[in-house]
Amino acid sequence: MEEEIQKIAPNPYLYYYNHMSNETNKDDNIITAVLPGFMELTPKDQMAFDRMKDIIALTYKQFGFISIDTPAIERSEVLLAKAGGETEKQIYRFNKGDNDLSLRFDLTIPLARYVAEHQQDLVFPFRRSQIAKVYRGERPQKGRFREFYQCDIDIIGRETLSLMNDAEIPSIIYSVFSKLDFGPFMIKINNRKIINGLLESMGVAELGVEIMRTIDKLDKIGKEEVSKMLVEIGVPENVLPGLFNFINIKGSNEDVLYTIAGLSDKLITRSELFDAGVEELSKVIKNIKLFGIPDKNISIDLSIARGLDYYTGTVYETKLTDYPQVGSVCSGGRFDNLAEKYSDKKFPGVGISIGLTRLFSQLKDAGIIDAAAGASTPTKVLVIPMIENMEVPFSIASKLRDAGVPTEVYFDDVKPKVKLAYANKLEIPYVILIGDDELSAGKYMLKDMVSGEQELVGEQELVARLRV
Amino acid sequence: MEEEIQKIAPNPYLYYYNHMSNETNKDDNIITAVLPGFMELTPKDQMAFDRMKDIIALTYKQFGFISIDTPAIERSEVLLAKAGGETEKQIYRFNKGDNDLSLRFDLTIPLARYVAEHQQDLVFPFRRSQIAKVYRGERPQKGRFREFYQCDIDIIGRETLSLMNDAEIPSIIYSVFSKLDFGPFMIKINNRKIINGLLESMGVAELGVEIMRTIDKLDKIGKEEVSKMLVEIGVPENVLPGLFNFINIKGSNEDVLYTIAGLSDKLITRSELFDAGVEELSKVIKNIKLFGIPDKNISIDLSIARGLDYYTGTVYETKLTDYPQVGSVCSGGRFDNLAEKYSDKKFPGVGISIGLTRLFSQLKDAGIIDAAAGASTPTKVLVIPMIENMEVPFSIASKLRDAGVPTEVYFDDVKPKVKLAYANKLEIPYVILIGDDELSAGKYMLKDMVSGEQELVGEQELVARLRV
Repeated sequence: MEEEIQKIAPNPYLYYYNHMSNETNKDDNIITAVLPGFMELTPKDQMAFDRMKDIIALTYKQFGFISIDTPAIERSEVLLAKAGGETEKQIYRFNKGDNDLSLRFDLTIPLARYVAEHQQDLVFPFRRSQIAKVYRGERPQKGRFREFYQCDIDIIGRETLSLMNDAEIPSIIYSVFSKLDFGPFMIKINNRKIINGLLESMGVAELGVEIMRTIDKLDKIGKEEVSKMLVEIGVPENVLPGLFNFINIKGSNEDVLYTIAGLSDKLITRSELFDAGVEELSKVIKNIKLFGIPDKNISIDLSIARGLDYYTGTVYETKLTDYPQVGSVCSGGRFDNLAEKYSDKKFPGVGISIGLTRLFSQLKDAGIIDAAAGASTPTKVLVIPMIENMEVPFSIASKLRDAGVPTEVYFDDVKPKVKLAYANKLEIPYVILIGDDELSAGKYMLKDMVSGEQELVGEQELVARLRV
Repeated sequence: MEEEIQKIAPNPYLYYYNHMSNETNKDDNIITAVLPGFMELTPKDQMAFDRMKDIIALTYKQFGFISIDTPAIERSEVLLAKAGGETEKQIYRFNKGDNDLSLRFDLTIPLARYVAEHQQDLVFPFRRSQIAKVYRGERPQKGRFREFYQCDIDIIGRETLSLMNDAEIPSIIYSVFSKLDFGPFMIKINNRKIINGLLESMGVAELGVEIMRTIDKLDKIGKEEVSKMLVEIGVPENVLPGLFNFINIKGSNEDVLYTIAGLSDKLITRSELFDAGVEELSKVIKNIKLFGIPDKNISIDLSIARGLDYYTGTVYETKLTDYPQVGSVCSGGRFDNLAEKYSDKKFPGVGISIGLTRLFSQLKDAGIIDAAAGASTPTKVLVIPMIENMEVPFSIASKLRDAGVPTEVYFDDVKPKVKLAYANKLEIPYVILIGDDELSAGKYMLKDMVSGEQELVGEQELVARLRV
């Protein structure tokens, strides 16, 4: 049955389900299908995926984040120190010798351990990036993977960390998604102290996690259903209008700030937390302007909370305007104390994460990523010798590589047609043909594989033209 | 006791042993030490490691290898299809749901599965690279890691693969190690058919694996001890002189080829395998010259065999001339049929692997990698505002990033001395100071942190000077 589903699924490049893809296998051969929930890409898609990964990595680097690399395996007690029941169920956990080990399920906990362990060797504020795979043994389903890339940056302070960092983060999100070029996007921002303060003033602070989780369903199930559920979990009916009014506050960032600042006096009981949140959000919004982010790309959204038990201040979500079904493509926020389980020092931080595997998969489904437009190899030039002596072909290939041009020589002894077909199938943009005529003229036949045009050129011109 | 060892060990950056590195931890905090046998680097060393990794990745790309990415977790039956008892003991194996899973212990078996699974989507010869971590639950010891990077390239043919590929591989090794710049190195080359043919002619072919494993110890335990062991495993004493004479054949590549070609008639019984090996090796050596590798970097070594049960033709090892203790830094060879366990099609291939984690660790121990010479951040420029308004600092930072210059703005409100100390500690090469004077002059104070010189420059000149 699952095989049937796979056959009609629109994503032959993704192996969500267990399937036999290799029909030439005899019965005694081993199943070669990738495990369900694991993404493995063919070269063309891999190139498209890597282009995205490279843009993210380069942008993080341009903003001065040092890329660190922690082990994929950690002690279970380290990974599970902060985790809840759901995480424990999903984790890949095993014993080796006397060690109780697990595969990391995010990059934040390993960062916390790293900072606690290496604090003497770090310079604060510590700007670290990590782009790596994490593991969750979830039931595989569309858009959920058991192995996936997270692309994280975090800025970690020692004891304190200026609020200016909370304003810089959106400028990095802006830079990444401008370069990724998937159309207009909106960076949504909020401050957890505001909603926590409001709930505190309503006397329902202890229900915070459940309230936010329920409110998250507004888009899906509607206001009435949400109201019913809120009452069921113990929210007094008389505070519901205030709650909904609050979440529905809309307008320009200035309008929203003005409105919530005015709410401070109208709360059932005054909340310092609420006031602190409003002040922080105002400052961050003001500073964001200095970073040059256009107004159309940043918007206060009082309904976002991002895992209520984790973040303590600023929170971010990012949505692609034309593809709301993809959900948040980049999320994060501020946390008061990163390494509280591992160190007595206080390390406040702020950061974001891009779930690249899921993002790629969903954008590909939505037809945004046109992998078909790209090649299946990094090679820019294929040198095709039509002569016996390989000296000149190898020499020009070497010169092109020195000039930064990925170059291959096709040296299998097959018909010229087969050699050109190889370039065509891989979509290599240029071919250099070297026959007896070219050899005796000391020239190269440069063929543009897209236009089909070809031209006899000398070595210097050849290298100059193809140089990156 | 182990903690004592750790304290006096010369490698504080490597966490071979379980230790408590974080002395500020209270008793109720969790042990934050990285697991024994796992390498985790501080930013400075990480930068040095990444420079090596980037050189290897870029070189592979310049030669037209497409980087693929397979899951770290595979079905145990896939990974263990070809593996022996030693591998089974070392593998990280666990169950999740009904699945018997394992972490990959090399990148070759995943490649075999990948080629079998995706053969319809691949263009042959398929040139693939993979730089990724593999896992072996070995007893941790110096130079042995439980998680380590392998940097692999392989060229895979369908049904056939030209011997020219065997000649191209050393040119890639040459390119990588020239750029890595660890002094002179020697690429050693052999052909397994020669030694197998010789053993066949001596009637001891079935002892091949054990014989080669014993001969590998020549350097360590000497000829007499090796002779004794060979007799013990069943090698007739009368063939020993022939075996040792063969392995001791030395000289220029031409001399060695001439000598072994002459051996063909003198073997106890004629061996077609031996003759085929000599012919292949001669062709490969001849073609290697065309690739422009200097003679001083390539040498036939009849004693190398590289895992007798795996490779079937050409084999390679690479040694750093000044650091023989490091052993082979890049090894590989030709295999007749990559995916025999997973497909009925034949996929011959040739490839190499660089064990980067071990290489880095050993070179660092040997003092070859001078991480101290490098910075602890990719940041090239730190913008230090001495003014309230951040608009100009952020704007120039953004322009520098657009010009490809990794740039940070130091916006924590601390004394200028602290800001400069941050740049110093991270070894950021340039600082831009912006005070009231600079602001009103429309200029920037550019300070070279190495020379200490500083100069007032305009925006255009600033960007032009720092542009990469």
